[in-house]
Amino acid sequence: MRTGIATVCLSGTLEEKLRAAAKAGFGGIEIFETDLVTSPLSPEHVRALAADLGLGLDLYQPFRDFDSVPEELYRANLRRAEAKFRLMGRLGMDTVLVCSNVGTASIDDDALRAEQLHGLAELAARHGVKVAYEALAWGTYVNDYEHAARIVADADHPNLGTCLDTFHILSRGWDTEPIEKIPGEKIFFVQVADAPKLSMDVLSWSRHYRVFPGEGQFDLPKFLGHVARAGYNGPVSLEVFNDTFRQADVERTAVDAMRSLIWLEERTARHLAAEAAGTGSGAPSPAELARASRAYAMPLTTLPQVAPPTGINFAEVISADGAPRTAELERLLAQLGFASRGEHRTKPVSLWTLGDARIVLNRQQARGLEPAISALGFDVEDGVAAAARAVQLRAVPVPRPSQANEEILQAVNAPDGTEVFLCEDTRWVAEFGEDQADGPAADEGTDDGERSPSSAGTGSAGQTSAGQTSGGAGTARIDHINLAQPWQHFDEAVLFYSSVLALTPEASQDVSSPSGLVRSQVMQTADRPGGRAVRLALNLAPWIQSDSVKGARTDTFQEHVAIEVDDLVAHARACRGRGLPFLPIPENYYEDLDARYDLEPAFLATLRELDLLYDRDARGAFLHFYTASVGSVFFEVVQRLGGYDGFGAPNAPVRHAVQHAARHGG
Amino acid sequence: MRTGIATVCLSGTLEEKLRAAAKAGFGGIEIFETDLVTSPLSPEHVRALAADLGLGLDLYQPFRDFDSVPEELYRANLRRAEAKFRLMGRLGMDTVLVCSNVGTASIDDDALRAEQLHGLAELAARHGVKVAYEALAWGTYVNDYEHAARIVADADHPNLGTCLDTFHILSRGWDTEPIEKIPGEKIFFVQVADAPKLSMDVLSWSRHYRVFPGEGQFDLPKFLGHVARAGYNGPVSLEVFNDTFRQADVERTAVDAMRSLIWLEERTARHLAAEAAGTGSGAPSPAELARASRAYAMPLTTLPQVAPPTGINFAEVISADGAPRTAELERLLAQLGFASRGEHRTKPVSLWTLGDARIVLNRQQARGLEPAISALGFDVEDGVAAAARAVQLRAVPVPRPSQANEEILQAVNAPDGTEVFLCEDTRWVAEFGEDQADGPAADEGTDDGERSPSSAGTGSAGQTSAGQTSGGAGTARIDHINLAQPWQHFDEAVLFYSSVLALTPEASQDVSSPSGLVRSQVMQTADRPGGRAVRLALNLAPWIQSDSVKGARTDTFQEHVAIEVDDLVAHARACRGRGLPFLPIPENYYEDLDARYDLEPAFLATLRELDLLYDRDARGAFLHFYTASVGSVFFEVVQRLGGYDGFGAPNAPVRHAVQHAARHGG
Repeated sequence: MRTGIATVCLSGTLEEKLRAAAKAGFGGIEIFETDLVTSPLSPEHVRALAADLGLGLDLYQPFRDFDSVPEELYRANLRRAEAKFRLMGRLGMDTVLVCSNVGTASIDDDALRAEQLHGLAELAARHGVKVAYEALAWGTYVNDYEHAARIVADADHPNLGTCLDTFHILSRGWDTEPIEKIPGEKIFFVQVADAPKLSMDVLSWSRHYRVFPGEGQFDLPKFLGHVARAGYNGPVSLEVFNDTFRQADVERTAVDAMRSLIWLEERTARHLAAEAAGTGSGAPSPAELARASRAYAMPLTTLPQVAPPTGINFAEVISADGAPRTAELERLLAQLGFASRGEHRTKPVSLWTLGDARIVLNRQQARGLEPAISALGFDVEDGVAAAARAVQLRAVPVPRPSQANEEILQAVNAPDGTEVFLCEDTRWVAEFGEDQADGPAADEGTDDGERSPSSAGTGSAGQTSAGQTSGGAGTARIDHINLAQPWQHFDEAVLFYSSVLALTPEASQDVSSPSGLVRSQVMQTADRPGGRAVRLALNLAPWIQSDSVKGARTDTFQEHVAIEVDDLVAHARACRGRGLPFLPIPENYYEDLDARYDLEPAFLATLRELDLLYDRDARGAFLHFYTASVGSVFFEVVQRLGGYDGFGAPNAPVRHAVQHAARHGG
Repeated sequence: MRTGIATVCLSGTLEEKLRAAAKAGFGGIEIFETDLVTSPLSPEHVRALAADLGLGLDLYQPFRDFDSVPEELYRANLRRAEAKFRLMGRLGMDTVLVCSNVGTASIDDDALRAEQLHGLAELAARHGVKVAYEALAWGTYVNDYEHAARIVADADHPNLGTCLDTFHILSRGWDTEPIEKIPGEKIFFVQVADAPKLSMDVLSWSRHYRVFPGEGQFDLPKFLGHVARAGYNGPVSLEVFNDTFRQADVERTAVDAMRSLIWLEERTARHLAAEAAGTGSGAPSPAELARASRAYAMPLTTLPQVAPPTGINFAEVISADGAPRTAELERLLAQLGFASRGEHRTKPVSLWTLGDARIVLNRQQARGLEPAISALGFDVEDGVAAAARAVQLRAVPVPRPSQANEEILQAVNAPDGTEVFLCEDTRWVAEFGEDQADGPAADEGTDDGERSPSSAGTGSAGQTSAGQTSGGAGTARIDHINLAQPWQHFDEAVLFYSSVLALTPEASQDVSSPSGLVRSQVMQTADRPGGRAVRLALNLAPWIQSDSVKGARTDTFQEHVAIEVDDLVAHARACRGRGLPFLPIPENYYEDLDARYDLEPAFLATLRELDLLYDRDARGAFLHFYTASVGSVFFEVVQRLGGYDGFGAPNAPVRHAVQHAARHGG
């Protein structure tokens, strides 16, 4: 599939946009008129630059308000068009986008439209240009792609075809099936954009809220399947108007954009394979997928298929060596019941475990930066395949100089710099603990000598080592991880974790905090008896700045690791006995809880005594507590009762308010 | 009128919100449940704090999902309500807001609703509480204020009344006239919010996009006029859910909020006076206004009435003394044709003039900060009255220690720190130029010896002094000023300039730039033959940070002063002769201009030669050029032909792109 991107998706000058698109691997680019008009580069220079970069100049756009006008205006429009055709000649471009008229249209007559477009195509032909006519969703008379295709058919000129744009088609809810009836050679261009389902006027929606495929709610694989079946084999090009992307770093946005098209290509192949096999929603076999990817004129590249992760292998917190914050973190982990499993053989890194919950404390943070969550390990079946998939999706591998005798782990960077490890087991644990005599880590390493998913293999070792010190915790594991994300890279993070790790985004939720609304986006694996394997929450906090690195964010940036235990009350009591600094919960909260849930007085007294929080859903209940923060990192301990499936969202405002007061000395 | 504000309008903790509301002068506050639940302050402590601050605790809110439910749920809801009534007793609050049910309503029966609300009122009465029932715009069965008022009438209990909320009424487009038929004593509470007219689902619109009165498009004076006529005399309280206000500085937002209610109070009095006098849109006389303000149970405080300004008296640019940027600015002004009118008698400040355009160059900028526009002077009829009005609208006066023999000027700070001078004349000009022998400034001072509007009085002096040096400029004046605004204070700035200076906001416009969309908001005086007296453009630039001070913004912050001249081509040529650094305009722009407008080749050649830009509207044409930037300040020179009324908006993307390239060395 030939990939493309419109310059309007990206920030910067025309030259910056061309370079970023080429670097991200796009095949071609659509030049939006304003980008050329405001550029100091001559058309000839742009042509040469694109050639140097190996970038096709696939579409000149937009040419507006051409059709459905009186004769005099039609003549003026032809004159205006000819100037642009000459310009395209200098650029070496051969396709122009002409949108259905929204400004000056005054005559509603399909025959006249066909005649005027035929005239335009005739003029275009003399300049070697093809005209792609597109129905805008808010076109005065033409707002439906089938209508546009009929006019094109009536005009009957080899230099006139149609352009299909997913936003204009799916925002109006048009049926996409009839796309297959358009002759493939009459589809001159395909533009794709995704969008969240918003109920607002379609023009504002289109101009400000489009996102890249996979970041919204349109069914784009189904759309593109129809396009493939119609026999189209031209560029599939992103045209995404988004206020945030227009402000964000151009190279980073270009990579996000490219990832979205690779995702779309794969999803389209899977959709076609599933339809061919009649399996509906079931995953197609590799052979079916390969067949579907080659079945149509438009070849669809596919990726290594991976199953969603089966657990969280570890979380890594980074802090500066010798800093008071680091000692604070170590104390906090011990008070939480974690056992130190010793130092890494070669690096200033220690391992802490509580049951199956593994936390790596990396002391290589730069001086002056705060502690932050720096890496996450996910349990996967095939680490090499998962990493290959990630890299094909434009994730950058983590350079990890391995020492002799070290496990080779697959890892890539998430867009915000968090390192994502793709782990098949926990053999890496054996690299820790040389300085320890009682060596539970070494035991664990031996237990897991063969490559097997760690979620099954390490349970008993964990229990032995950690259950004894945590005062009745029984088994324990990482329940979820909550990462703070800068607002301008939120959609990118959602696409990354869904395309690379096959996590599913749930509906996002707004939570009030003293510093503004916090948007919470949960990404998780499927529901199953015993609870979901992986839960990841992304928090879009207010005020997080653009170019910040982890550990240098503003003070509203908070992220945490949540540990699930068997008996939260007993665990909390043991933690209190070890002097753990709990996040103090206001008395007003318990009075409100009582008004809402009519709890047993003894139970309510226990919640009060231990600063515990409580929530209910349709299936069960949730008990949890938070620790104080160390810089921007804190911990949560949770217990899920009766299949409770949430995160205690109604309690989040309490946490935000108390953390805010702690930071501001209130 | 008793003023109030809901805690949900403000950022911070409950205590921070109470303190900010009291400091801004509010009479009372509505406590949003979450703010109390998340607070470490006990109800008794909150009560004492509010009493200390002189703040009434006017409304507890919200109590949700009470009515239209089966018996069992009704019993549970009563129990929940009683807990809240007890809490209100501890807080010393006597009014609770109950919203029409949106979550659990399952029985659509007005008789049942009246019965259930009667039962609630009976219970409330035992606790000394009054219940204000409000129709939410998206209530399952009750979404219309007249419907809610009918149910309240049917329930017929002294402790049950209704709450009117402008958002829920005006967002649905309900007729507001019938408000006058509700008995005043049955209106227990009035909540006001403004909003831009958005076409989106009403829940999202309500939860994220409300603004303070005067910042949106609702007709709130008409609404409040009906409320006054109904005989209501309770709190008029702001309930504004806005994502930006929730993040912004709490004290600043509280002042903005207070200003909006003072504005609303005055507008309501004017609306009632105009209706009483039958004058429609004409301004009422002071006597009519005073009468209207006392005509109803709810007294309406009014402000000194001022006419819109009649001109821009001067603009001040601040720069650091001895800095290279300052020398650059002086050179630029001279190259633009400005004449130096010498130094201020006592301060490191110089005056530069070109015709009637006066630019003050203040060299008192802090070291390390960039040049910025620091003050604007507006021509007003009565400076003392205008300043008194501004101060009543919570503007902070500029402390200006006058030396002996100095003009006493009235000045207040705009929200972003720009000083706004309210000038009756240009006698202050005489304070400059001691070092000059030819003293046109002194002449001008003498000419204007009597206090009269400067726009009429200084024309000839300006012509004499500046016309000679500018190379054929003839008359010149400040055409408009463009100020950059941080995004989180944009609505506040619009309200400030409309309420304090009586400028009228036009529809805002988005302009594309390499760093993102720039929202441009024009505020101006009425159209009149010869052009508008005052034009001010506020630019909402991407990435401007919160706590920045003028001169310390990010590099996308650019603002400028535009000078209007009689003969732009001649003036540009003279400027070029003096070596002025023009903003270079790309050749592609001229080719596009030709395609769009079919201009005379000779005229197009002149535009090209001189880096001029061109635009047309229905009335005429616009010629303009820009200078290079000095820090974040630049200048524009314009000529308006045939009553052209815009700002060359189609050319703004060119300016942004070229400035971006200049900053990034592209």
